[in-house]
Amino acid sequence: MKEYKVIFYPGGEEANAPHGENLLRVAAAAGLYITASCGGNQTCGKCKVIIESGEIEGGLSDKLSPEEIEKGYRMACTSKIKSDLEVRIPVESQLSDKRVLTEATSKRLLIPESLETLAPEYKLNPLLKKYYLELPLPTLKDNIDDYSRLKRGLKQSYNFPDCSISLSCLKTIPGLLRKSGFKVTLTLLETGNIPEIVKIEEGDRTAEHYCIAIDIGTTSIYAALIDLSQGEVLATASDYNAQIAYGEDIINRIVYSQKGDGLKTLQEAVVKTIEGAIHRVLKEADISEDKISYLVAAGNTTMTHLLLGLDPKYIREAPYIPAINSTLQIQAAEVGLDLPAHVCLYLFPGAAGYIGGDITAGVLGTGIAQSDELILFIDIGTNGEVVLGNSEWMVAAACSAGPAFEGGTIKHGMRATFGAIEQVEIDENCEPMLITLGHKPPKGICGAGLISLIAELLETGIINQRGKFNTGLSTTRIRTKGGTKEYVLAFKDETGIDEDIVITEPDIDDLIRAKGAMYAGVSTLLNSVGLGISDISRIIIAGNLGFHLEVEKAITIGLFPEVDYSKFTFIGNGSLLGATLSACSREMFEKADEIARSITNIELSDNPEFMEEYMAALFLPHTEEKRFPEVLKRLSKHRCRRTEVR
Amino acid sequence: MKEYKVIFYPGGEEANAPHGENLLRVAAAAGLYITASCGGNQTCGKCKVIIESGEIEGGLSDKLSPEEIEKGYRMACTSKIKSDLEVRIPVESQLSDKRVLTEATSKRLLIPESLETLAPEYKLNPLLKKYYLELPLPTLKDNIDDYSRLKRGLKQSYNFPDCSISLSCLKTIPGLLRKSGFKVTLTLLETGNIPEIVKIEEGDRTAEHYCIAIDIGTTSIYAALIDLSQGEVLATASDYNAQIAYGEDIINRIVYSQKGDGLKTLQEAVVKTIEGAIHRVLKEADISEDKISYLVAAGNTTMTHLLLGLDPKYIREAPYIPAINSTLQIQAAEVGLDLPAHVCLYLFPGAAGYIGGDITAGVLGTGIAQSDELILFIDIGTNGEVVLGNSEWMVAAACSAGPAFEGGTIKHGMRATFGAIEQVEIDENCEPMLITLGHKPPKGICGAGLISLIAELLETGIINQRGKFNTGLSTTRIRTKGGTKEYVLAFKDETGIDEDIVITEPDIDDLIRAKGAMYAGVSTLLNSVGLGISDISRIIIAGNLGFHLEVEKAITIGLFPEVDYSKFTFIGNGSLLGATLSACSREMFEKADEIARSITNIELSDNPEFMEEYMAALFLPHTEEKRFPEVLKRLSKHRCRRTEVR
Repeated sequence: MKEYKVIFYPGGEEANAPHGENLLRVAAAAGLYITASCGGNQTCGKCKVIIESGEIEGGLSDKLSPEEIEKGYRMACTSKIKSDLEVRIPVESQLSDKRVLTEATSKRLLIPESLETLAPEYKLNPLLKKYYLELPLPTLKDNIDDYSRLKRGLKQSYNFPDCSISLSCLKTIPGLLRKSGFKVTLTLLETGNIPEIVKIEEGDRTAEHYCIAIDIGTTSIYAALIDLSQGEVLATASDYNAQIAYGEDIINRIVYSQKGDGLKTLQEAVVKTIEGAIHRVLKEADISEDKISYLVAAGNTTMTHLLLGLDPKYIREAPYIPAINSTLQIQAAEVGLDLPAHVCLYLFPGAAGYIGGDITAGVLGTGIAQSDELILFIDIGTNGEVVLGNSEWMVAAACSAGPAFEGGTIKHGMRATFGAIEQVEIDENCEPMLITLGHKPPKGICGAGLISLIAELLETGIINQRGKFNTGLSTTRIRTKGGTKEYVLAFKDETGIDEDIVITEPDIDDLIRAKGAMYAGVSTLLNSVGLGISDISRIIIAGNLGFHLEVEKAITIGLFPEVDYSKFTFIGNGSLLGATLSACSREMFEKADEIARSITNIELSDNPEFMEEYMAALFLPHTEEKRFPEVLKRLSKHRCRRTEVR
Repeated sequence: MKEYKVIFYPGGEEANAPHGENLLRVAAAAGLYITASCGGNQTCGKCKVIIESGEIEGGLSDKLSPEEIEKGYRMACTSKIKSDLEVRIPVESQLSDKRVLTEATSKRLLIPESLETLAPEYKLNPLLKKYYLELPLPTLKDNIDDYSRLKRGLKQSYNFPDCSISLSCLKTIPGLLRKSGFKVTLTLLETGNIPEIVKIEEGDRTAEHYCIAIDIGTTSIYAALIDLSQGEVLATASDYNAQIAYGEDIINRIVYSQKGDGLKTLQEAVVKTIEGAIHRVLKEADISEDKISYLVAAGNTTMTHLLLGLDPKYIREAPYIPAINSTLQIQAAEVGLDLPAHVCLYLFPGAAGYIGGDITAGVLGTGIAQSDELILFIDIGTNGEVVLGNSEWMVAAACSAGPAFEGGTIKHGMRATFGAIEQVEIDENCEPMLITLGHKPPKGICGAGLISLIAELLETGIINQRGKFNTGLSTTRIRTKGGTKEYVLAFKDETGIDEDIVITEPDIDDLIRAKGAMYAGVSTLLNSVGLGISDISRIIIAGNLGFHLEVEKAITIGLFPEVDYSKFTFIGNGSLLGATLSACSREMFEKADEIARSITNIELSDNPEFMEEYMAALFLPHTEEKRFPEVLKRLSKHRCRRTEVR
């Protein structure tokens, strides 16, 4: 079949593809991620591209304005290529070079100060260890085989009664022993009762020992390179999960996995993303990949399944059964990762189909399971998860919050990367002040920015408690476009994109639903154990919302319960934190399975109590005023400006 | 065509055959070997049978006396069947008990009667086992992951506290559980303290459980398919090791492995041969390869290294160090065998660079390590190995005998397969009578045939004690061709090949060196522990020499020491015997490593005592006449015909 060449701008990436191929897939093949919330289902209208030369079929949509169509804008997901092409990906469709939050903290692996007391059991004890041996040279009188000589040395020097060996390592033994004068370093995989020799190196290499912790998020992948001789994080990197091209959330990914080669495509996409992140941390620290002993990865259950190439189908269907939720240790190469044969991959255990390894890692990293106090853990990601408990018991629930807080479904939503609006203040004239990440011209709004914005809109009376605009205010920023009311955060010429940045009433509805689901999840969990908000000693927030998450504003909109601010801790990426700690500490990793098994999952779908709580929470901050007395006191200050539309 | 039923007595074996079929072939088809010296050429008169009922055509011969004809005796090779028959095979026409024992028992894996006392610990206990589970269906209240459900089932039904799983198996679990209604059979690999689930099948498949035992010889590969539910051998196959093309013996193979891709070439060659043998046994028994759970392979140290792709270089250089000599368990696919991912490969441990897993297997299979009596074990293969000992101690030595006994280096040497001359008798006119394997026209001479032949040549005075021809005899069978003296065993038109089958003086020299090395090895071992031949209670001979190995003749040529015949047992392929037993018995396999570690290797290369013994043994039977008094008595009978050329 005829193949065409497609060049993508601004990067100049090239890909070849056959006649009729879908343009979104061509871009993915070239390693380019075009924002596509709906996974190519032609509903979200976000994958706009500009066809600069060449011919396509399709690509039109009512999501495109006549001006855009005139300029060559098309929807990539419905475009089929019919010739060589030059395609420009507009800024708003690029999943930019982002840098996520933990990156900024980077250099030293340490539980954040506030958490040190929460992870008291942490001590440096890597999952694989290195042992240096100086062995006697073979003679006719001492002519045991090379492998037995190693075993004897391990027994004499380190008291290992026995061991096993991988074939790939065995192959390197005769040559390396002789090259090194029988002075070698062994890397041992210690699981079960018999350690396995997975690697042999010349001379004493015990100081050169590294591993990588990985958080496999639905939206983003994070990697942290760890020096195991010191327990230090040397470098971190993150990237968008390349699976995004095939669906924005878990459900869409599962749906895609059921189509033809879908599972394979999704596995390859995440493997490619992880490889990229590994490559970047290694490059940054100038360390070669053969010095890596293992990876420790945490992700939600579906992400884990897709990485392993396991069919996630039954996670989606009641009673929501994963293939595996336990700790798993395999060769990294088994999932297709292009790493040396000795590199192991450890996967974090989960508690249920929607309470995955990322949550176990967060719980582990924050020490909830060792706490005497009652802790509430809230992970705000593409899915929202809530855990409540202490060292005695833990209950958890997954809330279908939707990807609003990660930028999905919101017209100008985006991830917390350069140009994302993180913080908003609005003055008495309805004029906003915006703080963007990296101080770049605004490109969109991230999770923290949305929370800040909605709270400001509410406090200033621009919206009412149902999230509807007060059209009686004299400002050009509140307007109606195409029948939809919106507030303009930044006019086109102030932005880093080619249009006004706005928040619409449907966006606000989405946010209210998302925060309502989170809050209702917390309430349902508390009810399930007969406790109330006042019983909670500490609230730990995890997620990639952005650095500037303002607790006060999150309480104002009713996302978090109204308690004293001092009870809140924000830890950023909890999954990566737990994976990093466990990568450095066998005791921590072993505890993970115990934690996963001790969490009781409360299923919220079809749960009438949750539905009732959810309906009650679809209000800013909540229909039950007594739950947010301080917020209501503050809101009353602006009551003069409010037009009651309730 | 009409088929008749033929019943053979005393065994009661039955065969169906068409009208007019040759009775010798009917017997062969029933698995019965009727002595037929001439390979069915109707000249030897040895295949007498008694027709007890029914009608035949032909079968008369001047080899039969009138009394015999009266009693119903006929020659099987010229009898054609014309009705249902009952046929008795008289004692003198039955192949002796010296048939390879494992072969004789063909249908049922049993330690041959004579060995039962030597392997008392044998009981059916496969290395991998199958377990059937009927699991409760998942519900919202019982929604643990599939893998945990399996683990719980294994714990509840079979008391396994924990287990692990291979990724390849994990992938099949969700689909298979649901397809089977959660009724499945698991195959478990039980090593270390945590068993691994390697395979899952729908429904109860515990009865369908098979493995294959393999002997990896330098010259030949043997495979036996075993039904693990019964401990029965269902089929066997053998083939030349395709590595032969790259060197006849171990040293040449090691040399070849050092050239360019040599190691890879050799690995691929043996893998291909093993695959062929596996394919044949599976086809014969009509069993698909996915029903195989594991392979158990025994081979000498170099063969094992080449199969694993391990560099054998240091086995050849003093102090002769292998990479590994312990038990090894890997995936069969890791060495390139085209088998499903769940198939394990177990390799037998060896004792030294030249005392490999084949010898450990032979020692294991014959029970030397459990014996109170002193046993001498001699394995005659491409290399010759000797083990001496009992339950208290064992010493072993490898003799560079060369491949003469397996047919290598001998002009018309061949493996013990159809058409191989196994037994030779020479009359007073220097005329030979030949017994071939499978009653086929002769194609060459196997190990047993060579021993028989050399003994006959010696006893009849056709050669002298130095192996030189007596050219003074009046026979056309002794001749000089191209400057080389030779004896014609069969002229071209009597053979199954396109030339005369001969034995040459250089062939005889080779045989004398080979038998001299074996004998000297035995003597050196005995000397090393201060014992003599009279201290030996039992001598066990292993090797693929052929069915008809005649102990008397082997003593005549000085291959075996002169002791009472009753002390000898011939077990055929000891390596395959040990591998087969171990494949059926975890206790046996575990004992192998213990045996390998308890054997003391006596190095013969550069051993002056061995060299002295070897030089003294380069004579028929030996230069020291007092070691073979009975042989010399017999030889003196023919002394009248001898022309002394000494």
